[in-house]
Amino acid sequence: MYFTGPAKSPLSVVTYSDSKLVEKFLNRGSKSVADAVRPILEDMDVRGFDALVDYSKKFDSFELNTGSIRIAMDEIQRQAATLKNEQKKAIEFAYNSTMEVQQEIAKSCQSVEVNSDFGCTKQVPVPIERVGFYVPGGLAPLPSSLLMAGTSARAAGVKDIVFCTPPRKEGINPATAYIMLKLKVNEAFWLGGVAAIWLMTNGISSICKPVDKICGPGNAYVAEAKSQVAQTGKVGIDMIAGPSEVLVLADDSANPEFIAADLLAQAEHGLDSSAVLVTDSEKLALAVQTDVGSQLAKMKRGKEIATSLENCGGIFVVGDLLNDGVDIANRFAAEHLELFCKKETEAAILKKMPIAGAVFVRTGEAFADYGMTGGNHILPTKRTARFSSGLSARDFLVWQYIEELTDDGQKKLAEMAGTFADMESLEAHANAARKRDR
Amino acid sequence: MYFTGPAKSPLSVVTYSDSKLVEKFLNRGSKSVADAVRPILEDMDVRGFDALVDYSKKFDSFELNTGSIRIAMDEIQRQAATLKNEQKKAIEFAYNSTMEVQQEIAKSCQSVEVNSDFGCTKQVPVPIERVGFYVPGGLAPLPSSLLMAGTSARAAGVKDIVFCTPPRKEGINPATAYIMLKLKVNEAFWLGGVAAIWLMTNGISSICKPVDKICGPGNAYVAEAKSQVAQTGKVGIDMIAGPSEVLVLADDSANPEFIAADLLAQAEHGLDSSAVLVTDSEKLALAVQTDVGSQLAKMKRGKEIATSLENCGGIFVVGDLLNDGVDIANRFAAEHLELFCKKETEAAILKKMPIAGAVFVRTGEAFADYGMTGGNHILPTKRTARFSSGLSARDFLVWQYIEELTDDGQKKLAEMAGTFADMESLEAHANAARKRDR
Repeated sequence: MYFTGPAKSPLSVVTYSDSKLVEKFLNRGSKSVADAVRPILEDMDVRGFDALVDYSKKFDSFELNTGSIRIAMDEIQRQAATLKNEQKKAIEFAYNSTMEVQQEIAKSCQSVEVNSDFGCTKQVPVPIERVGFYVPGGLAPLPSSLLMAGTSARAAGVKDIVFCTPPRKEGINPATAYIMLKLKVNEAFWLGGVAAIWLMTNGISSICKPVDKICGPGNAYVAEAKSQVAQTGKVGIDMIAGPSEVLVLADDSANPEFIAADLLAQAEHGLDSSAVLVTDSEKLALAVQTDVGSQLAKMKRGKEIATSLENCGGIFVVGDLLNDGVDIANRFAAEHLELFCKKETEAAILKKMPIAGAVFVRTGEAFADYGMTGGNHILPTKRTARFSSGLSARDFLVWQYIEELTDDGQKKLAEMAGTFADMESLEAHANAARKRDR
Repeated sequence: MYFTGPAKSPLSVVTYSDSKLVEKFLNRGSKSVADAVRPILEDMDVRGFDALVDYSKKFDSFELNTGSIRIAMDEIQRQAATLKNEQKKAIEFAYNSTMEVQQEIAKSCQSVEVNSDFGCTKQVPVPIERVGFYVPGGLAPLPSSLLMAGTSARAAGVKDIVFCTPPRKEGINPATAYIMLKLKVNEAFWLGGVAAIWLMTNGISSICKPVDKICGPGNAYVAEAKSQVAQTGKVGIDMIAGPSEVLVLADDSANPEFIAADLLAQAEHGLDSSAVLVTDSEKLALAVQTDVGSQLAKMKRGKEIATSLENCGGIFVVGDLLNDGVDIANRFAAEHLELFCKKETEAAILKKMPIAGAVFVRTGEAFADYGMTGGNHILPTKRTARFSSGLSARDFLVWQYIEELTDDGQKKLAEMAGTFADMESLEAHANAARKRDR
């Protein structure tokens, strides 16, 4: 059963079983740029700073040298000062809310200690020492992402924050600058794209030491470069974010205007962003469809947003929200899951713990995107929520095992450890264990 | 200043500044097998089960079909029953110790909840649903690694454990079989190498559903296959383990015989394993060198172990263990760090939190390798301890944000979220926020 809906809406209503939407959803943004990125990284491995100079000229029309690569503190302060009061207030609120949640998370990460007759084993959290943040340039510098990652890192106790962004004639984005000051960024560089990822991974003496982990969004080249440097094992990365996505589960108690607005906000991220509504109410489905059309008509980027919804958006009408709806949600395992349901349905859905990066309960995702909830908007996409988590202070801690057996404990356990080593035919291991009992 | 030491010892004593050992250490095992693995994965993408049949025949001389691929439960029970009592006892002890530590870790992973005037944000742990374990065949089936990863997964609450191992004529390794029963493995397959990684990633209907995360050691091809499937984002992986390594910090209070035994045990893992002693005592250095020679003489695989020590082993004599020694330890960021020092030096070193996957305090690593301490022996290698952690129950939990703002909270925060969205020029986000205040 297909609804065509009002002619003005780009959002089609389809039954789940007929839909190719799940396949479409999974295959977004898969075009490989690996072959373009690899030689650039290799060139920088060979030529170092000279290559950075060339790529800065080529991609950013910027004359890079050991002086111009540094973003001056007074430039950051000057730009931050240009913000209006209400803009500062919004950033302050987002910063404080996010920091509070991340500090609670960091505080909950406590050492674990298990004692036995033979000794003591601990698992202890240690902050990662040095983290690099990439902030994209162009039209979408995403200061909010810097805020999200930066508060998480600082809450965990990261010592050094290194910052890279593509050079811009108009100077650093004022909101970004304001957040850099809040975060007390330690080193900041005008460097974009693959070159920035290379610098933070490998370092150049006298300019920048290598970092331990690289975070932050970027275009496909930046994502691919992060993926390739992570492969080498030289540096950790936060995640490879795919195109953004939202899945909404709603019944007839929901406000169609809000849902339409949230689907449009998702679609605004790009042509491969996915915005999907699953509902048991045909009435709601049609109302959302209509509202999408009328809200779109007032938007400057309406045409692009409509194309995104046509590409990767849709409405499923299902018989039973609790069963069919949650099954679909688990199949999508979306980055964002919004619930707009009657209280009892909502509770039943939450109890089933549908897979998602973050769940929004009767709450517009846009509030969380801008730190109003204190949650983190850097979240796993493309079904990776099955095995990975939204960014938090946890991602800036490593857990170190500290293990101690008493001399007597080692004496008593020597034969047992030796027996196990024998089963694996590792004679030097068996020797190392049994020596303790001689 | 170089010591040549006793002619019989393969371990050379060198000063740190002259040494190329750090570079050697970092460049172990880097030969790429990517180009061999990629076409195999692609072939299986295209031909599915038929390709698995062909590769099983080619690599394992095994006639794979939809029946023979399954490891029968009675085979597992029969093999487990062949273990001697003391072998069962060693496994039971290791299993219980490791499970206890992992359960404590899982128990410490509690939801975090932050309430405000506007709503409530939580971060909630959810067990990964379905995990695949690869267990290598051949001479080193490493049942202890299955025990380590399996207890961590079960402690976290993983529902399904899927098991793959290369087919062996002599049947499943008895210790592995015993641990499979302890872990209540849900599905078990005779499938090796790249094919096993492919199956667990993609699944084949009627045989095996895809898993969410793949764990376990394997040869270079298995490691590369894990890395390649992780790149696709279809599945998570535990880690890409490099060659094993130990760094020992010891002063003149240490027992040279124990240190020599531990270095030999490390070197036993392979020709690119690294075993390094850092000491402020020339006397200890020479004693360890001598002991390595004399213990080696009694070992069946002595020649291989000696070659490993010559390749990637060494002794540094430093002026000051607390400063120079810890600096070297941080530079290596080794998988295993052993401390054999006087109490006050030990405390001062531990306070500096040297980077390592696991720290062993006056304790032979071999005890931890076989679960006697309850710690986990699946640990980050090749300096990745800077940004990643030894395996634990944490690796089998994902953290989901659950965010809720009241209607009134959304009303009050709408303008602020809208202001932030305006700064990022995201009009549909601003619309979604401000709609809540209309």
